[in-house]
Amino acid sequence: MLNDEEFLRGNVPMTKREIRTLTLAAARLDVDSVVADVGAGTGSITIEAARLAHGGKVFAIERNAAAIELIRRNIEKFSVGNVEIICAAAPDGLASLPALDAAIIGGSGGRLNAILDALFDKLKTGGRLVLNAITLQTATTALEYLRARALPYDAFQVQITRLERVGRYDMAKALNPVWIIAATKEV
Amino acid sequence: MLNDEEFLRGNVPMTKREIRTLTLAAARLDVDSVVADVGAGTGSITIEAARLAHGGKVFAIERNAAAIELIRRNIEKFSVGNVEIICAAAPDGLASLPALDAAIIGGSGGRLNAILDALFDKLKTGGRLVLNAITLQTATTALEYLRARALPYDAFQVQITRLERVGRYDMAKALNPVWIIAATKEV
Amino acid sequence: MLNDEEFLRGNVPMTKREIRTLTLAAARLDVDSVVADVGAGTGSITIEAARLAHGGKVFAIERNAAAIELIRRNIEKFSVGNVEIICAAAPDGLASLPALDAAIIGGSGGRLNAILDALFDKLKTGGRLVLNAITLQTATTALEYLRARALPYDAFQVQITRLERVGRYDMAKALNPVWIIAATKEV
Amino acid sequence: MLNDEEFLRGNVPMTKREIRTLTLAAARLDVDSVVADVGAGTGSITIEAARLAHGGKVFAIERNAAAIELIRRNIEKFSVGNVEIICAAAPDGLASLPALDAAIIGGSGGRLNAILDALFDKLKTGGRLVLNAITLQTATTALEYLRARALPYDAFQVQITRLERVGRYDMAKALNPVWIIAATKEV
Repeated sequence: MLNDEEFLRGNVPMTKREIRTLTLAAARLDVDSVVADVGAGTGSITIEAARLAHGGKVFAIERNAAAIELIRRNIEKFSVGNVEIICAAAPDGLASLPALDAAIIGGSGGRLNAILDALFDKLKTGGRLVLNAITLQTATTALEYLRARALPYDAFQVQITRLERVGRYDMAKALNPVWIIAATKEV
Repeated sequence: MLNDEEFLRGNVPMTKREIRTLTLAAARLDVDSVVADVGAGTGSITIEAARLAHGGKVFAIERNAAAIELIRRNIEKFSVGNVEIICAAAPDGLASLPALDAAIIGGSGGRLNAILDALFDKLKTGGRLVLNAITLQTATTALEYLRARALPYDAFQVQITRLERVGRYDMAKALNPVWIIAATKEV
Repeated sequence: MLNDEEFLRGNVPMTKREIRTLTLAAARLDVDSVVADVGAGTGSITIEAARLAHGGKVFAIERNAAAIELIRRNIEKFSVGNVEIICAAAPDGLASLPALDAAIIGGSGGRLNAILDALFDKLKTGGRLVLNAITLQTATTALEYLRARALPYDAFQVQITRLERVGRYDMAKALNPVWIIAATKEV
Repeated sequence: MLNDEEFLRGNVPMTKREIRTLTLAAARLDVDSVVADVGAGTGSITIEAARLAHGGKVFAIERNAAAIELIRRNIEKFSVGNVEIICAAAPDGLASLPALDAAIIGGSGGRLNAILDALFDKLKTGGRLVLNAITLQTATTALEYLRARALPYDAFQVQITRLERVGRYDMAKALNPVWIIAATKEV
């Protein structure tokens, strides 16, 4: 994983390194995976996925113009050639995607059920869906969706507290917790 | 407990309400307790202690001029009449304290062992020592001190994540974790 | 607050001391408060509330026979004389309660909305409702209820990690996190 | 990463999947990495490292007989052919290791400084040291060691709370937190 400071990030919130690590591990990418990153933000997940799936392809779906510009510049900075940006508010823009090995949701703009429908439609059998939620409602809605379809899931909350060196002390500095919810498309 | 926003706080870090609640519960104050609050900061613990021990007295020890001014203004705002501010870098200023029912350490300025010596010296038998640590080293040093003197202790880390209402969502916003370490002077 | 080990507890899950402390602080009890403790479990919250509101009264509502027996024995052990046990599956049993200063929900048996309706009906103006949730769905349902009625709330998750002394080490042992949600009946 | 249930584990404590993921990410293994896993326990980190560094080698150092037997059986279960078990109480057994790309410390049996000395001696320039600590003292001792040698480090605490499906609810079940401390041998 890259360090957080390596990304250009502006004022767009970024998924922190430890969360990226756990999210991408849950996505189980191969070198040739085809991946969608919905609500790509700064593109930090997109870039890491593109490096892991360097023989595959990553579609970054993002509606915010400032974020799209950051993704473009991060793609350039890290010289990744296998990313395609889709400027749309998901689920818009998802219908044109090819079959996916993995879909990662970092942001849903309030249309989570429709996004999940569209992504499960595109996922191959055995494909992975991974969602990062920073609100209680998003986590609950995602779990409800998966339960309603009898899809088994793994779900956990991760709370990272960094130890920041300050003189001869290490101060405990909390990152905001994230719920990571993952499921496999079984049939 | 008061709400955090009720305190005047400037740029001085303040012990948050949930931490104040657990800290003061560990101090087991009575209405007539005599209390020292070392490293009083904004005075939030001082004020709460003074309200709980309204028939007793609270000594707020603080070295930082801006913090002392905040404590003064918070005393005035909450009209508490049983606080005495001691402008000193602890353990300086502790020798003149009367016998204490409870001592709370919010900040130690790197002289923790000497502060603990001075406070245990002043604590009555059965008196309570409660320390809030935000660094790994302060927590470890305090535990080492208590172990070396065979003082039983209760110690835990508390991590509060507030749910902040944002539109129709509740976002998980972490406060920095704090170690709360408490011991009783037994003899 | 009492120590966890002081309570008789059998196999019934018990609200841990730090959580009891924060829950009862949120309930803002006075010495003469009238309180309902719904889903009282071992009675640990009931007993603490009864000691704080020693001039008031606490109604412990619980449906489980083993738990009711534990509450009885804890009442006896701590010699509290101001508790009445109501053997019922809430919201059953709530209609006969008097006007309440505070209502605490530790368990809802899946009928949370009806319980909240019944309790807000009984709460005096200015009365406090405090809920402890250990599942995502209970927390979300409670927040939805409060939002739908435009009731302002304070909500946070608390994660306690106890430091357990093992030889010369202090091991970090996590308690399960709890969401604490509190609101005031305003009119 | 493998699921926790896939490992044979007996009564030996096991590093949980999310922690393994973050630990191995911090170790930055290549397919041909030479790795030491000190205090290998059930061998869960050893097995994962052996699968990531399938063209390299993993040395599992462990002193406990029951744990060694578990490592043997897990090696067999997962058919990894690039692990060598060293039955010794580290730092014993470390002197005979070849040059290392990464060293992971899961347990130190109270001899952490000597283990760190031995491992930094074996690490190649650019090699990674990653330590998992479950006690405050181990974390503090490791940070002190790294500071004393002016080795930059990344350190954080990770607290995982799994959501366990219970009927129509997801219960928050905390794992014990772990401090993960990582450093690079720079010269």
